[in-house]
Amino acid sequence: MGKAERTKIFIAEKTASLFNQKGYAGTSLNDMTDATGLTKGAIYGNFEDKDDVALAAFDHSMNSLISQVRELQADERSALGKLKAFITVYSNGLRSPVLKDGCPIVNTGIEADDTHVLLKEKANAALSRWHKSVSAIIQQGKMQGEFKENVNSNEFASLMIAMIEGGFTLSKISGDASYLNQSLDHLEQVIARQLKK
Amino acid sequence: MGKAERTKIFIAEKTASLFNQKGYAGTSLNDMTDATGLTKGAIYGNFEDKDDVALAAFDHSMNSLISQVRELQADERSALGKLKAFITVYSNGLRSPVLKDGCPIVNTGIEADDTHVLLKEKANAALSRWHKSVSAIIQQGKMQGEFKENVNSNEFASLMIAMIEGGFTLSKISGDASYLNQSLDHLEQVIARQLKK
Repeated sequence: MGKAERTKIFIAEKTASLFNQKGYAGTSLNDMTDATGLTKGAIYGNFEDKDDVALAAFDHSMNSLISQVRELQADERSALGKLKAFITVYSNGLRSPVLKDGCPIVNTGIEADDTHVLLKEKANAALSRWHKSVSAIIQQGKMQGEFKENVNSNEFASLMIAMIEGGFTLSKISGDASYLNQSLDHLEQVIARQLKK
Repeated sequence: MGKAERTKIFIAEKTASLFNQKGYAGTSLNDMTDATGLTKGAIYGNFEDKDDVALAAFDHSMNSLISQVRELQADERSALGKLKAFITVYSNGLRSPVLKDGCPIVNTGIEADDTHVLLKEKANAALSRWHKSVSAIIQQGKMQGEFKENVNSNEFASLMIAMIEGGFTLSKISGDASYLNQSLDHLEQVIARQLKK
């Protein structure tokens, strides 16, 4: 990896939490120089503009989040265990470096949906990948005989992700853990009902 | 109502959808003069600053939303019917004037949670009022013998609101209706299971 590439990664890493916390419009160039300790010239020598930094920062946040999930899934053979990895990551989210300022998919998606095409596409692509991943795990679970054959994997993925994000987002906003706790407890019950006896 | 009061309401009304769409940091003074057709002087003659406009705009959005719910609830005597009013408003939300740009509670809460104390408090107060309202309806339903006595009204309110907001927010972000549809369908089933036979 060359120096330029390392610097880009450094900037993405240092600004990821900034963009997730303050939003795209709320993050200034000063915020970016403060967070990185670099000059304006050094930042814009490596990125075209603020958009370009924000896109790299979003990717950095998503990669961290996906790594957390994959690490938990690595030793799991069961589809149930793999599904629960998502729940575990979000149940600990308010105390985790990536999620403590909110889920980047929702934060970025909410801000960008009416304003920023590229960020909006990134948030949507991330959501879509998550949906495909959950759906594939359920399909695998059906083939392995863990889940009932009549479970609709796409519908179930939508329900599961909506419950996680709804609970997580409201608890983040309000500081009241009950939204997240009730959602995740209920989700575990719903998942259990999809298992073959 | 005096002229100043009418002008304030006019400005709140005209900027409500703007703030909900572009966010607090993303809304400029130019956006506000464009949306209202008023000059900068007219806006800041009636409000102290952008914060002050944003707070009034948020109140305007919430009042519209609450009116929609109350209108549906007005003819409902059953607790079940009153609960379903919230579901109806959000199920039609992506085509409704107030919710088409997302739920103001989530939009404002997400943006303001790490940055704007007054807006954060407003979003939290709105969420908290909604929670109390749902909880009171369930308590009423238990007293009327509609709901089972072992339903925990606070926990159920958290679950219900998290499911509505999770589904609605993800469908708004992605343009994919399945998150909202699956959440609301599931929520109706969960509510039905709390009813006495």
